[in-house]
Amino acid sequence: MIIIITGNGKGKTTSSIGQIIRALGHNQKVCLIQLFKGENFYGEQNILTKLEGLDFFSFAKEHPFCFKKISKEQTTEKCNEAINKIKEIINNNHYDLIVLEEFNIAVRDGFIENSTLIDLAKKLSEKSTVMITGRGATEDLIEIADLVSEVKEIKHPYTKGIQAKKGIEF
Amino acid sequence: MIIIITGNGKGKTTSSIGQIIRALGHNQKVCLIQLFKGENFYGEQNILTKLEGLDFFSFAKEHPFCFKKISKEQTTEKCNEAINKIKEIINNNHYDLIVLEEFNIAVRDGFIENSTLIDLAKKLSEKSTVMITGRGATEDLIEIADLVSEVKEIKHPYTKGIQAKKGIEF
Repeated sequence: MIIIITGNGKGKTTSSIGQIIRALGHNQKVCLIQLFKGENFYGEQNILTKLEGLDFFSFAKEHPFCFKKISKEQTTEKCNEAINKIKEIINNNHYDLIVLEEFNIAVRDGFIENSTLIDLAKKLSEKSTVMITGRGATEDLIEIADLVSEVKEIKHPYTKGIQAKKGIEF
Repeated sequence: MIIIITGNGKGKTTSSIGQIIRALGHNQKVCLIQLFKGENFYGEQNILTKLEGLDFFSFAKEHPFCFKKISKEQTTEKCNEAINKIKEIINNNHYDLIVLEEFNIAVRDGFIENSTLIDLAKKLSEKSTVMITGRGATEDLIEIADLVSEVKEIKHPYTKGIQAKKGIEF
């Protein structure tokens, strides 16, 4: 099964974290591969690293649009490392759930080919449920998915100039 | 701050669970008040009950639309117990985040008055971030909220007749 959580609203990453907690609660084996999430910044990282049954990998921690010292080439390289990790998993896949966090962003911003992500998702889904998050899921990815939710922003305090809040946005 | 996660798509409860994990990861104090979620059924319950910093209360575990032996009067009574618990919290509120899980459903199905939920949310939000989940958030609730996300169902395997999957839907 392939699940996509996309859209411009708040709740995509937290939804994938909740999904991981749900699966772990049934003693399932879970793998989280995260892109663009700085270390020791998001609160959930402190809990997830301690949970049994979860393998947690993080690549391309800094997105070049946010960190000017990071080049697009460096990010593409880091995303390739993530792709290689996924290929390793495909060869020896023992997970119930595999979460590819922010991979839609990697495709949107040109660090991963759309066709590559689709191919990896299909292969992973032969043995696992695959959840892919991030705004801007492509039509082709939605086409091959079994379950797609779009998280729409109806109202957000950012638009009133209110800053990101610890424990809420990170 | 008041946050609403509503809509007909998959990802609302998992989003609130992820939000709780995020806040706990920053050593924040969190309270989860859950409606209509049977015990030892949802995987996340097994993890949440073990996490430090979280107070977890569950009321009206069986919704009368799903369990015919439960009357609407019994459910209203159980929802009133949840309301009383929230009033207790308001009098001694030391939480960073309070999650009211499926309370939109309780309002939609007539077990809690819309005006009661709005009043409780406002009072809780004086000291805490309040997150309210469930499909069918009322316009009045959305009006007083700071952040609203609508999780829209784009595609769901239920519509193809595929059954709920352990670790995914529960």
